Amino acid sequence: MERSKALELVKKQLTDKRYVHTLGVSETAVLLANQYGADASKAELAAIFHDYAKFRPREEMKRILVDEHEDERLLEFHHELWHAPAGAVLVRREAGIEDEEILSAIRWHTTGKPGMTMLEKIIYLADYIEPGRVFPGVEEVRSIAKQNLEAAVLAAVKNSILFLMSKKQPVFPVTMDTYNDLIRMETMVN
Amino acid sequence: MERSKALELVKKQLTDKRYVHTLGVSETAVLLANQYGADASKAELAAIFHDYAKFRPREEMKRILVDEHEDERLLEFHHELWHAPAGAVLVRREAGIEDEEILSAIRWHTTGKPGMTMLEKIIYLADYIEPGRVFPGVEEVRSIAKQNLEAAVLAAVKNSILFLMSKKQPVFPVTMDTYNDLIRMETMVN
Repeated sequence: MERSKALELVKKQLTDKRYVHTLGVSETAVLLANQYGADASKAELAAIFHDYAKFRPREEMKRILVDEHEDERLLEFHHELWHAPAGAVLVRREAGIEDEEILSAIRWHTTGKPGMTMLEKIIYLADYIEPGRVFPGVEEVRSIAKQNLEAAVLAAVKNSILFLMSKKQPVFPVTMDTYNDLIRMETMVN
Repeated sequence: MERSKALELVKKQLTDKRYVHTLGVSETAVLLANQYGADASKAELAAIFHDYAKFRPREEMKRILVDEHEDERLLEFHHELWHAPAGAVLVRREAGIEDEEILSAIRWHTTGKPGMTMLEKIIYLADYIEPGRVFPGVEEVRSIAKQNLEAAVLAAVKNSILFLMSKKQPVFPVTMDTYNDLIRMETMVN
């Protein structure tokens, strides 16, 4: 799909603010893909569509998660986690994207997952460090992202867990599984 | 089982240092049981036996975990986590303790578990705050333990997770499940 067509489809789904965020994720994802040798056009499409379901009604997202047999634990956690797997379903259904690598990068962009592909890592990280993001620790992750993709994703996942815990929020188990997976990979490499 | 008989059985299994720790856990567990209205004699026995398997050979513990169909994920995590479930098995087998509440408190004293019983919470917490423990945060947990058992266990679980993450260690999923469970309970109460 052409970039302009993808942007046109996505713009209708998002607030102006979220659309600007999406452009930032897209720009960052393409840079990361070129830097680390991933398919830049897939990274761009995945980034453009990553928040496609962000503003869908909760009930619609919940129905999709149930109908598509997504991880049942999602329903016990914050609905903020639902738009990623629901988005993967809707992007296939409504935008006709069939590329499983792209859909999987959309699906796991909020929680992460153990054994992430390079494209999944790039979208997760681009969503975290795109130029519009301002929160404690983001500059450090941007800096690590210039050197090492895995270390940057680990730093982002770790920050996310620590942020949730500092706010007395639960942490989705798959996010902790992702942290454990990346920590083990790091230990094996170093 | 009499306290003196239990101590005699356990002393043979432990180093002197670990035996002194066990006496501290026992003393603390009895105090907590009396404070929160649990069975003090069960708390005492569970505390005395909680580290029974601590110095068993790793291979023996691993065999027990496999033979007894314990959580397979344990084998991928640090062997420090093995002595609690292996201990529950060995305390039944070798010391003849059949009380499921006591055995369960031994089983879950390192990782915690969602939906802990009062006795499980008391042994988990007593192990964390017994007088011999000196590490950052322990005084705060001791102080909370004077007011609220659940809040103290949550603080201990949270500290444990943050400590592991600060050391770039993986976190056993059941420990994060325990944190999530206690955070939800706290939100429901407050």
